[in-house]
This record gives sequence, C-alpha cells and structure tokens, in this order.
Amino acid sequence: MAIVEKQYESFKIEQQEDNIAIISLNRGDMANAFLTKFPEDLYSVLSEIADSSEIKAIILKDEGKIFSAGAHFDVMKATDTPYKAKKYLNSLNKAVKKMYDMPQPIIAVVDGAAAGGGANLALSCDFIFASEKAKFLFPFVNLGLMPDTGGLWTLTRLAGVMRTKEIAMRGLTLNAQEAMTYGLVTKIVPSESLFEEAMSMAKEIADKPKFVISTIKSICNKISEMTHEDYCQIEEGIMSVMFFTKDHEEGLNAFLEKRKANFQGEE
Amino acid sequence: MAIVEKQYESFKIEQQEDNIAIISLNRGDMANAFLTKFPEDLYSVLSEIADSSEIKAIILKDEGKIFSAGAHFDVMKATDTPYKAKKYLNSLNKAVKKMYDMPQPIIAVVDGAAAGGGANLALSCDFIFASEKAKFLFPFVNLGLMPDTGGLWTLTRLAGVMRTKEIAMRGLTLNAQEAMTYGLVTKIVPSESLFEEAMSMAKEIADKPKFVISTIKSICNKISEMTHEDYCQIEEGIMSVMFFTKDHEEGLNAFLEKRKANFQGEE
Amino acid sequence: MAIVEKQYESFKIEQQEDNIAIISLNRGDMANAFLTKFPEDLYSVLSEIADSSEIKAIILKDEGKIFSAGAHFDVMKATDTPYKAKKYLNSLNKAVKKMYDMPQPIIAVVDGAAAGGGANLALSCDFIFASEKAKFLFPFVNLGLMPDTGGLWTLTRLAGVMRTKEIAMRGLTLNAQEAMTYGLVTKIVPSESLFEEAMSMAKEIADKPKFVISTIKSICNKISEMTHEDYCQIEEGIMSVMFFTKDHEEGLNAFLEKRKANFQGEE
Amino acid sequence: MAIVEKQYESFKIEQQEDNIAIISLNRGDMANAFLTKFPEDLYSVLSEIADSSEIKAIILKDEGKIFSAGAHFDVMKATDTPYKAKKYLNSLNKAVKKMYDMPQPIIAVVDGAAAGGGANLALSCDFIFASEKAKFLFPFVNLGLMPDTGGLWTLTRLAGVMRTKEIAMRGLTLNAQEAMTYGLVTKIVPSESLFEEAMSMAKEIADKPKFVISTIKSICNKISEMTHEDYCQIEEGIMSVMFFTKDHEEGLNAFLEKRKANFQGEE
Amino acid sequence: MAIVEKQYESFKIEQQEDNIAIISLNRGDMANAFLTKFPEDLYSVLSEIADSSEIKAIILKDEGKIFSAGAHFDVMKATDTPYKAKKYLNSLNKAVKKMYDMPQPIIAVVDGAAAGGGANLALSCDFIFASEKAKFLFPFVNLGLMPDTGGLWTLTRLAGVMRTKEIAMRGLTLNAQEAMTYGLVTKIVPSESLFEEAMSMAKEIADKPKFVISTIKSICNKISEMTHEDYCQIEEGIMSVMFFTKDHEEGLNAFLEKRKANFQGEE
Amino acid sequence: MAIVEKQYESFKIEQQEDNIAIISLNRGDMANAFLTKFPEDLYSVLSEIADSSEIKAIILKDEGKIFSAGAHFDVMKATDTPYKAKKYLNSLNKAVKKMYDMPQPIIAVVDGAAAGGGANLALSCDFIFASEKAKFLFPFVNLGLMPDTGGLWTLTRLAGVMRTKEIAMRGLTLNAQEAMTYGLVTKIVPSESLFEEAMSMAKEIADKPKFVISTIKSICNKISEMTHEDYCQIEEGIMSVMFFTKDHEEGLNAFLEKRKANFQGEE
Repeated sequence: MAIVEKQYESFKIEQQEDNIAIISLNRGDMANAFLTKFPEDLYSVLSEIADSSEIKAIILKDEGKIFSAGAHFDVMKATDTPYKAKKYLNSLNKAVKKMYDMPQPIIAVVDGAAAGGGANLALSCDFIFASEKAKFLFPFVNLGLMPDTGGLWTLTRLAGVMRTKEIAMRGLTLNAQEAMTYGLVTKIVPSESLFEEAMSMAKEIADKPKFVISTIKSICNKISEMTHEDYCQIEEGIMSVMFFTKDHEEGLNAFLEKRKANFQGEE
Repeated sequence: MAIVEKQYESFKIEQQEDNIAIISLNRGDMANAFLTKFPEDLYSVLSEIADSSEIKAIILKDEGKIFSAGAHFDVMKATDTPYKAKKYLNSLNKAVKKMYDMPQPIIAVVDGAAAGGGANLALSCDFIFASEKAKFLFPFVNLGLMPDTGGLWTLTRLAGVMRTKEIAMRGLTLNAQEAMTYGLVTKIVPSESLFEEAMSMAKEIADKPKFVISTIKSICNKISEMTHEDYCQIEEGIMSVMFFTKDHEEGLNAFLEKRKANFQGEE
Repeated sequence: MAIVEKQYESFKIEQQEDNIAIISLNRGDMANAFLTKFPEDLYSVLSEIADSSEIKAIILKDEGKIFSAGAHFDVMKATDTPYKAKKYLNSLNKAVKKMYDMPQPIIAVVDGAAAGGGANLALSCDFIFASEKAKFLFPFVNLGLMPDTGGLWTLTRLAGVMRTKEIAMRGLTLNAQEAMTYGLVTKIVPSESLFEEAMSMAKEIADKPKFVISTIKSICNKISEMTHEDYCQIEEGIMSVMFFTKDHEEGLNAFLEKRKANFQGEE
Repeated sequence: MAIVEKQYESFKIEQQEDNIAIISLNRGDMANAFLTKFPEDLYSVLSEIADSSEIKAIILKDEGKIFSAGAHFDVMKATDTPYKAKKYLNSLNKAVKKMYDMPQPIIAVVDGAAAGGGANLALSCDFIFASEKAKFLFPFVNLGLMPDTGGLWTLTRLAGVMRTKEIAMRGLTLNAQEAMTYGLVTKIVPSESLFEEAMSMAKEIADKPKFVISTIKSICNKISEMTHEDYCQIEEGIMSVMFFTKDHEEGLNAFLEKRKANFQGEE
Repeated sequence: MAIVEKQYESFKIEQQEDNIAIISLNRGDMANAFLTKFPEDLYSVLSEIADSSEIKAIILKDEGKIFSAGAHFDVMKATDTPYKAKKYLNSLNKAVKKMYDMPQPIIAVVDGAAAGGGANLALSCDFIFASEKAKFLFPFVNLGLMPDTGGLWTLTRLAGVMRTKEIAMRGLTLNAQEAMTYGLVTKIVPSESLFEEAMSMAKEIADKPKFVISTIKSICNKISEMTHEDYCQIEEGIMSVMFFTKDHEEGLNAFLEKRKANFQGEE
Repeated sequence: MAIVEKQYESFKIEQQEDNIAIISLNRGDMANAFLTKFPEDLYSVLSEIADSSEIKAIILKDEGKIFSAGAHFDVMKATDTPYKAKKYLNSLNKAVKKMYDMPQPIIAVVDGAAAGGGANLALSCDFIFASEKAKFLFPFVNLGLMPDTGGLWTLTRLAGVMRTKEIAMRGLTLNAQEAMTYGLVTKIVPSESLFEEAMSMAKEIADKPKFVISTIKSICNKISEMTHEDYCQIEEGIMSVMFFTKDHEEGLNAFLEKRKANFQGEE
C-alpha cells in the first residue's frame, strides 16, 4: 500500500523510488521548529508508514538551511500548566518511541543546524548523515531546562555518560567533526552529495529482506535492557523462523548462483 | 551556607570563587594514599557540600607530584579479618556513591600518578582534566587483588568491556594520551594551565541553573539501569517541573534579550 | 590436571607452555566452517579446560588462510525443521555462553577471513589479535538471516548500537583497520608475529593470580546487567576474600621485595 | 469524542453510561474464538478508545455461555509457515500490549469458560470479575504448545512462578474459586449480578480523575522493570504535576467541603 | 554510642532496652500529620541511629488514636510551585530510602488509622504489627493525586499488581484483616498487647548477630533488581566473610554447647 | 540414553518408570547432610540427566526420617579460609543453577526435617510435595550466618520480601501448614501416599511434550529478569517453532480424535 503524499503543519511526506518515504521539515519560515501539531502529525505519519508494505526505508531531512530549531517558542509559551507541559513532552516522546518501533530504519540528513529538540530528533534516527555544515546545538541548560525529546537517552547510548554530561551541562554546540568524534554521526558527506548518499544507503537497505532489517532494528533498540540469556532466547526463536522464509531461500540461492538476491517479502 | 574550611587526615577542603569547593589531597608525605579515616572524612565533607546551597561545583585535586597512591599499606595491613576488609571496602564504595549522588558535578584534576584506588577515585568524578604528566596505574592484579573503589564499574562505563579486561587483567599503566584514547579523560591540558582550565569549567558550570545541572548528573549516572520507557516518564515529569521554575523564566528572558542569564536558584 | 590433546571434527586442541590451551580450527579443506558436531565438541573441550587447574589462558586460532566461514552449508541444509534450527542455534549459543563463563580468558587470533558465525565466534572471545590480513564479514542479511551465535549481543557491546545496525543491516565486511576503529579488535599485529604476540599476552595473563583473572572476566561479562549497588556488594564480598589468599600475600611480598610475584593458586 | 459503535468479526463495541466502553465477544456460534482479524480489530478499537476523551473505563465481556475459546482452529491451521505464526502471535501480543498501555482500566467479566488465549486475554485486563460458572483452561501443553498471548507473563505476575509452572505444565483447568486462591481473580460474584457489579466498579473508576487513574495503571504495569530509585524519580515528577491540576484543586475543595468531588479533567 | 533522646516537630525519639530505638509520632493534636520538617527530621534521626553501634532494632509507632494522617494540609498548601512540590516529595522519598538502607530492621506498630503518606510510611518498614483497630487509608485518588512516599512501590511489592491497582484506583480503606489478606501486615495482635509483642520481636532481633540482620535486610530490599547470577555472587562473597566472624564462631559454639548464643558484634 | 544407577557419597540415583530419575538422599547416618563431594556429585548427576533423552521428570527425596540437614559440620569446619568458603558456596550455587537450567522439572518430596541448605535445596526444585511431618528450618542467623544455597533468592520468589525477612531474621522453623501458607509448598499429602502422589505428578509431566515442558520451566525461571517486550519476543519466536513440531501435530490430532496424545519428541 502506498502512503498518502501530503503537506502537514511542520513537514511534508513523499514516497520516492517506490519504497522510500521522505519526511521533509519544510517550514524554513519557522526555522523548521516543531509547531503545535508536530508530535501528533509525526506519530500519525509514522503509523501510516509502519503499516505500509511498500515502504522499506525512511529519510528525515530538512528543506532549507536549518534542520530544525526544536520546539517553537509559541508552543513552549502555550504550555502554561505543568499538566500541559507533561502532555506535550509525552507526545514528543511518543513520536520518538514510534520512530524506535518502526519496522523501517530512518536516516537523518542534517545539512545545517539541528538545535535542541531538533538535534534530539535527528539522534533518535537509526543513522545520521551530516554535511560539514551540520551543527548540533544543545542549549537547554541555558534556558533553565534539561534535554527533552529523549535527549539524555540517545546521547548516552551514542556518546557515553561522560561526554553526555559535558554536552548537556555546558550546553555545547558541536560541529560535524566533533559530533563524529563523539559517536553521534554515521558519516560526514559533502553538502552537495549529502542527500544522494543518504538515498543510496536507503536504497541499499530497501533491497534487503524486510523482516531481517526490522528485526535487527528492533533488537538493537532494546538490547541494553536485555540479559544475555534473554537475548539468546530471542535470537534462537526468531532466527529459527527466518530459516524457513522465502527470503532466506532466495538469499541462499542467489549466493550459490552468484547473483544479487531479489527479496520479495517473507510470507 | 558556606562550608567549613578544614584540614582532614588525608586532604583539606576550601571554598573558592564563592561557589566552588576544592578538595585537595595534600599528604604528599604519604604519596596522598588513603589513610584510615579517608572514606569517612570524604563522605562527611561531601555530605556537607551536598547540603550547601552555595557550592555549585567541586574540584578534586592533589597538591604535589602524585594524585593519589590509593589505599595506604598500613590500612591494608590493619584489615586483618575479612569482616574488617568488607567494612573498609564498603566505606570506600559508600564515599564513591556519595560522589555519584552529589547535586554538584566533580572535576578531577590529575597532574601526576593516580594509582589503584587513587585512579578509581579520579574516574568516579564526572570529568577528568589531566596533564601530560598524568598516569593511571591499575596494579591490583599484581597484588593478587581485583580493582576496588568501584573500579570495574567506572572502567566499563568509560572504556567498554574489552578495554577494561585488558587494563585490569594486565595491570596496565596508562599515560594521559592512552587514557584519553580509552575514554577515561575529558581533556588533556598542559600542566601549567591545568588547574586554571579546570576552574574555568567549574565556574562555567557554577553559572548554570543548579537544578538542571544536578538533574543531568543524577539521570546520567543511573541511565544504564533504566528502560527507555522509565527514562521517558522521568524526563517528562522533571522537565514539566523545570518549565515553571524562575531559572527557566530567566533563561528564556535572557535568550530573548540576547544577554547572559543570571540564574538565582529554582524555588 | 592436563587436558587431552585431540583432533575433533572441526578443530584440534593442544596444551602449550604448560598452562596455555590452543584451540586450532584446522579444517582448511572446509574453510574452517562449523561442521555438525562443532557446538557440542567446543562445549565439551571448554568444559574440560574449565575444570583443568593447569590451564590459565586459551588461544583460539585457525591454521590456514581463513579463520572460519561460520556454519557450514551442509549443516544449514540439515536443519530442515524449525525445531532443529532452534536446537542447532541453541547449541551454538550454549558454546558461546561457556566461553563467557570460562575462568580462563580467551584470545582470538585472526589472520584471515572470519565470516558470519565465524566472526561472531571471534568476537565472543575476551580479546582479538588481528593481522592486517584479517577481515570480518557479516553477510547474514544477504542470506535472509540475522546474525546468530550471539552476533548482535557482542557487536553492540563492542561497537555500540548505531555501528551494529550499520554492520548488520548492510552486511558489511570490515578490514582489520575498520574493525579496530569500530572497537572490535584489541590489537593489530603484523601477520608474521601475530601468533607470537598473542602467546606473549597469554603467557603474561597465565602468570597472574588465577582467581583474580577469572573474577575480572566474570564480573565484566555480567556488569551491563547489574545495578551499581549490586556491583558494590559483589566487589566488597569477593575482594574481602582476595585479601586473605596466599596469592595476595605473595603479591604484597613481591611488591615490597621489588621482585616479580610467583603466584601459586589461592587456596 | 464518542466512539463508533460497531460489530466487528469477533466482537462488538458499545458506549454505555456516557463514559464506559463495552467490548462484547459475541460470536457464540464460534465459541467466541479469535477469528482471523481479531488481533487487528481489537488493536484498532483500543486505539480509538485510547484517544477518546469521553471513555474512562472499559469492560471486556462475552455474550453467551463461554468467554472465549482462544485462537480459532482455522486460524491456527492457516498459519502454515513459521513466519505467519510469528506474525499472528505478534499481532496478539501487540493487542495485549495496547491493553496494558491504555489510559483506561479494563475489567474482564468472565461468566463461563475462558480457554487458552481466551484465558490469557482475560488475565491481561486490570481486573477480573468472575461468576461461580467461570472456568480458566490452560490446555496449551496438551496441544504441544506453550501459553501464548502473554500467558506466562500474566500468570507469573499474578500467581507466582511455582503456580504458573503447575498450571502451564499440567494444562490445568481452574474453577472460579481456584483461580481466586491463585490470585487470578479480583472478585467472585453471583452470575446474576456479575455484569452489574463490574459496571458498578467501572462507574466508580470513571468518576475518578482520569490522569491519576491512567498514571496508576501505567506505573503498576511497568514497576517490575524499575529500580526503586527510578520509581522515586517518576513518582516525584508526575506527582509534582498532579499538584497543579484542576482535578487536585477540586479534590481538595470537595474534601474540605465534605462533598463528592466532580472531576472534570486535568488541563 | 547511645542516641540522643529528643522531641522533634512531629515525633520523639527514645532508646529502650539498651539497644532498641523507639520513634513515636506524638503530635496527636495534629493527627500525627507530617509537618514541614518531618522528612528532614526523620532522615536526620535515622542517620544517627544508622551510625549507632548500640541500636539493633527500631520501632515506629504512634502515641494516641491515629498512626498518622500523612502530609499535613498546611504543608501541601505551602508547596505552591512544582519545584517546591518535587523538593518536598523528594525529601519524603529520601527519608523512606534511608529506612530501606538502615542496618537495623524497623517494625511499624499500627493501632489506629494510617492514612495516605502515613500508610505508605508504615508499609516502608520491614514489618507491620497491627491491632484490630488499625486501618489503612489510601485516599490519594479522591484528592486528584497518586500515592506518594513510595506508595506504589511498596504496595506492589507486598500485595501484587492487581490488588495495588484496586487499592490505588478506588482509594480503598483496608481494615486490619483486609490488610493481612492483601499481604501488607505481618501480624494482627490485640490492641492491649500490641506494643509488647512488637517489642518482643524487636528484642528477639536485637539478640541476633547484627551483620547478618543488616545483610538480610539489605539484600531482600534490592533482590527484585538483581539477576540470579548477581545474587549468587553477592551471597558467596558476603557469606565467605561471615564464616570468619566471631559471631559465627560464637553461634557455632553455642549450638554445639546447646546454649543460647551471645553475639557481640562481628569485628 | 539411560542414566547410570549409582550410589554417590551423599545420595543414590535410580531410573524408574522408564523416564523418571529418582535422586535419594540416603545417608540417614549423617542426617542426609551435604558431605564434601555433594555439590560436584549433584552437578555431575544432573548434567548426565540433562543430556539423557529418556528422562522427562526428576524426583528429589530422602530415605529416612529427615530430608536433609544441609551442609555437614565437618565440611563447614574444613572451609578454613575465605577462599575455600567462597569455592564451596559457589559449588552449591552452581549445582542449584544446574537444577534451574535442567530441561526436566524437579519435584522435591519432603517427609521430615529440611534444615538450612537442605531446606533451600528443596525450595530450589520446581515443586515441593510435603507430608504433615515436613518441617523447614532456617537456623542460619543463629549460627551467625545468612541463608546460603540461594536461600534468599528462592524464599523471596515464593514467599515475598516481608515473609523472607521474617523467616531469615528470626531463624524460623515452619511446619508443613505454615510453609503452605507462605507459598513454599505445592501440596500437602499424607505421609503414606506422599511418594506415590509425587510419582503420579512426575508421570503426568513425563507424558507431556518435552520441549514444551522445558521451555515453560526455563522461561518461568528467568521471567523476573525480563521486560515485557523481551518476553513477547521470546514467546513469539519459540511458539512459532512449536507450531511446526510433530508433538504439536500429534496434540492437535489427539484433540480432534478425542484421545490422549502420545508425544514422541519434537524433532
């Protein structure tokens, strides 16, 4: 099933190359900040993509000079009771959790400033392709706030506890090379070919067997909460299922016939 | 409330720049080894600092050529029953846990050899500034012992499991550059400006909103024991509180007025 | 007690230097692939070594140009029901768990291609010494499969979640230098001196106190599943025992007498 | 927003008393077994209810003499590859997880046999009201299967590990009294007044403040995965938000004025 | 070292029978509600007791007709910002955590109503002795609040998840017998002999070896957060220490000489 | 493969009814205390049983008037260094872990006193059948010791934290009825028919499909260490395997043909 191409309040969604969904933050007029309906819209688009049998990879990018400025000031001002704040923060975390739970991997393409919640949104993707113009800003502390949108979770998973403390306590701005050194970025690519390279990886992954890709993503995202014995039980059960999929049969045949496999889906 | 400046058996404590506490291991005559009352004294000083509304950052440093030689041989000899050993080791771990639980971040300044428990003490701080003269010695195995003072915990958190095994099984001595590569050190600074740079970071942090700083520290120290869903619940609850602090208001105003924020405390 | 030197279906086992066990994958005719009885044979040899008071370190290496090609195609074909697949995968994980639970550290020596389960077997060792000829192949996804033999567990522990997703989803082949950068390899050594260097580390560890070495290995392998407080309880209890071993006495005396310690065992 | 009353393949959904949703398994012709679209239909209905601001409690009941026979044999037969089996089992667990994650509590009303997946579905509710005609059958083992639909999870949480092993290994059938003794049932009620009593509790809960009810449910469902310190952070954060809701203000006023509170919602 | 007998704002502290500390909530004029300084006072008294080598057991009781009414309304009113609420709730949880971490067991003596935070305080003790006049009230939900002072943690540990949801969502009041059935109470004792029986158990425990008692308490309080393997490591380490204490020697001798042991302390 | 019937130092092993292994503590002359080689012998016998395809259930019983007195005093005396104590305690825990990890369930038959380690050994079985003569003694504290052989782990899993503290701190002796009330015992049976009833359950379980039984045991024993999402992954994977076993086919056919299934094994 194809997804519905549409402009939402804070972003638009398109389908490209048959099986790749592109989410573009295209409110450059607002510095791509998260507007009021951003969390619900993102959740809703992701739900549609998750159920689409066509889509096999997702790209999250901006159109313009800035990736995202994070929560818009108007939105922050509108959260005038603690309950509304909790509700808004929860809706952001719910959208991020949906990103984690998607069967398709998500590649963030960062070609400018990703600030605050915008940086944390990018870090919540499976991979980040950044150009030399990318910057990651974590100014929360200077506003009397801690990182939201799952910030400390994603930072500690990628950069470790000591670097996360440094970033969050000092409110650091990292350029692309620093972000790479701290483990936040998958690859630095010249700005001109950035989108092309990200699409190339998306297409590569889209050609892989979908059940395997979604399983790797799902297990990796939860593996820090597992014991070794639980991991083994999970690996043994799912792998035993994979041994009897058509995709495995095709993969094996392709290997023996020294050709590229043509994966069709697992049922 | 100011803290009481005092010389303890193994170290002295001072207050500088109004809001920075300096703990100096100043028993160079003993190679700054941990003497009998070291764990209790450290715990007690830290408790006082934790309750002080004035102190916003802590520096742990040595005076002399060695950071610390770890547990003094006389102390080790005096632990002549397993119960006494357990009690002494517990008192060290209790002091380290207090370091973890402090609302204020602690910066270790290492300008010479940090050996055994002395190295692990430094690694238990939030940040380590080291000069090129710094050395980290883990000789436990050669004494028929494993790392104490939380050694394997802090090493695996910073350097990962494989490097920790290498360090602990071989009883390695790491110079500053090796320690940096292994992820143990925040920054290498020339010996001459080492203290100054550490103070500069302490002052930078002391100017940030205290509730935010202590929250970042506290969550980061426990995040490896959380599931993602628990983290989100914690983030949403505390962040909703932060949205209604005076420090957040000041931070927001300062941002809009393009001036440096003047954080006063959150109540 | 010495171990029995013997040729198994997929490897041979020897004892060298009195206290080092060498497991050599020596079925170059089969690309050192895992044959039918490989998991049980490995488990059984490891059990014998675990109980041997003589052996203090283990080397896992290949004889020939390839480390291991992972599960043999004939074995994969023979798993023609999901139950047989589950049973075979479980037997591999059981052997890997035995590697984790061994009192002796295991050093993998990789001088050629380690592919699929073969790569994951190497990564399950405590240390990897690799030559510039080493390659690590993770082609599972191209066969419609996820990494088995504990692959995602060991990869995420060493390389982190983002790099593991990249390796596993793309089916990457890493050369020695890339594997080093990703944290998979302990040391790169020229092919000519590779075995010699690994033996040198094995001998170094074999001279250390056995109880300490096995404790460090055991705690490090489980530390990601512990809370800080549990770690402290474990450290305090075991360390209190170590304080009263003959090996600690010898270590202390050797230190004071400025000679190399001669550890005899702890009882 | 009201929910859409509708007949699905395996159940119908109605709204009663303004704020209570009733899900009735009404395919007595099929012994209320789960038909093909059951998991997706249930998930979809629950999603609609979760987003409805009107609904404050849910009742899950049967119409007829049997609660549910679990997965229908035709469905089981149709899962003719391991992948399809995994997909079907996953869709059941996804529906159960949705039951756990609902903001509204769910009361199961069991007035006859609840067998296999049907029993586990009932146990996944927050409360079970059972008549003396209720029976809970766990025949999986006799079919060469383990409990599915989260069976071992819910059984161990309610009845403990020893009783769960007994139930699952022997394939026990428990009558209402035995189920009560084993901790599975909230209350035994005469068949005639069973639905009325369940509705009475649903109405009682529907009159409580919604944010408090959903928070209690959510924390209780995850508390076995939390450390004590994480629980405290969560409690402190959310409770601080609750202190500033209108519902708390109303609750406090009602208490002081000795009248029943009239909770309106938290914003 | 003896403890200082003293009247605090909300309770008094005495030492009886040489080694038993009695904390009496004696502000019947205030229904023994928690006044402003209650959390800090309790924490401070417990710290003093924890460090006292004399005290071996603690009793927490009321003087008058009510155990405690929980947080005083004036205190609740004074928490007029979310930050103050968080701070107050944190101070309560800190005091409860101190109760958990005390080396001495605490016996709650409940002879009347224990309401809200007062009920949760009683449940945070190691044992509860209740008379038939005891009542446990959990009215939080009716005030638009969730249980604080660790309520959901202690309730789920004692009564399980289903009963906790019932208690907390319905705002139940449990009489002594119901509390016993739900697993909250250790023993029901006639009101006349209630204190005497509690003292009798306190004295029994005070005669046991202190290191053993504190170890049992500490491990039991953390065991739900441990894996089995971690538990075993902890048990083996600490038990190996206990084998070489004087108290073990005395226990063994007393057993062989068929007399009551006279435990002196472990060093 | 049949097991070897044999008399060991502390017990004998027999095979009955073709597929049931009986371990009898038959050193009544020693009050069935654990002699020096007990842990290794038990581990070794269990390993043999675990690998036997014939054995489907295990009974652990005594011959005589006492189940077991736990560790023999001579053994305790012989552990004259902390290292030896740690080693002995570890060998006991290793044997208990083997009991947990066995594919076959173990039924303890307790017809007299089970004291200390003897009680904990019985509690480590999957089920306990006890006569009215059974007694469970936990005298550790009176000997200056904490429960060993996994005592606190098994007690808290069965009786909860509060009752465990009571049992362990007071050194309680529980009769059969008390043990039943505290959740330690599966069933109380008159002494005359005790063995017969236990055999009846063993035979019932031996007729069930082996893979299902071992899976239920294994998951239940680890479920307290799993998150809900990990449990679901495990359930879905293994259940998908079970759907394609011959035992499931036989179970389904037997059900449809209304006859008792004749399970042959899963391959």
